[in-house]
Amino acid sequence: MKYQFQPIGHIKTPYNTIDECPRNINKNAAPCHIFIKEEYIDGLFGLNSGDPILVLYWMDKAKFSHLTLPSRKTGEIKGIFALRTPQRPNPIGAAVVTIEDIIEGEILVRGLDCLNMTPLLDIKPAMK
Amino acid sequence: MKYQFQPIGHIKTPYNTIDECPRNINKNAAPCHIFIKEEYIDGLFGLNSGDPILVLYWMDKAKFSHLTLPSRKTGEIKGIFALRTPQRPNPIGAAVVTIEDIIEGEILVRGLDCLNMTPLLDIKPAMK
Repeated sequence: MKYQFQPIGHIKTPYNTIDECPRNINKNAAPCHIFIKEEYIDGLFGLNSGDPILVLYWMDKAKFSHLTLPSRKTGEIKGIFALRTPQRPNPIGAAVVTIEDIIEGEILVRGLDCLNMTPLLDIKPAMK
Repeated sequence: MKYQFQPIGHIKTPYNTIDECPRNINKNAAPCHIFIKEEYIDGLFGLNSGDPILVLYWMDKAKFSHLTLPSRKTGEIKGIFALRTPQRPNPIGAAVVTIEDIIEGEILVRGLDCLNMTPLLDIKPAMK
């Protein structure tokens, strides 16, 4: 059985090629802008600057091919579910970041590691 | 544009109705079994007991209808992206749990809050 989802917005980052993307979430990295589609903006009510959020996105340029890969940190061969590589059956990215600013359907955060124009799947308050 | 994903397995929990599900992730709650499809089992290589993992799943019984809802904790009205409710445009659940045991394609964890037979989307090492 296959399931479908529809992006609720997109993420603008300074990274236009995979080589430019940072290898990990880094809280001091470049500012990124999360844009929510107009029909979902009311769903942001109650989110404020300073709130930690879990951002889920679809790394649509990643190609899944192997079940094991070398770790980018250590070179050790590991299963893809033991790695954070985008090359996985369902390329969902997950990052906890802090809201720096939020105006209407636009959220400013810092340090996402995904490509410019990555489709946005969901935003939730991060668990403390 | 719509995107498709295919479950990589499923989660067995003791909860067969939404009323039975705990309201939150609780590390001391009931044991749950995560089953990976046979074709993906090699992707688990390198995951061990004691490792914290981020589990992503699809809460396929949740119905999305409203952009704001009362918080289950406080009753305060909030946007769904400021809440952890399953009633959201893309009902992806996200939980950090610890592997208690892992044998072949079966992972024992404790404290997931989802229904029995929930489709599994992804497993990643949790960020420390």
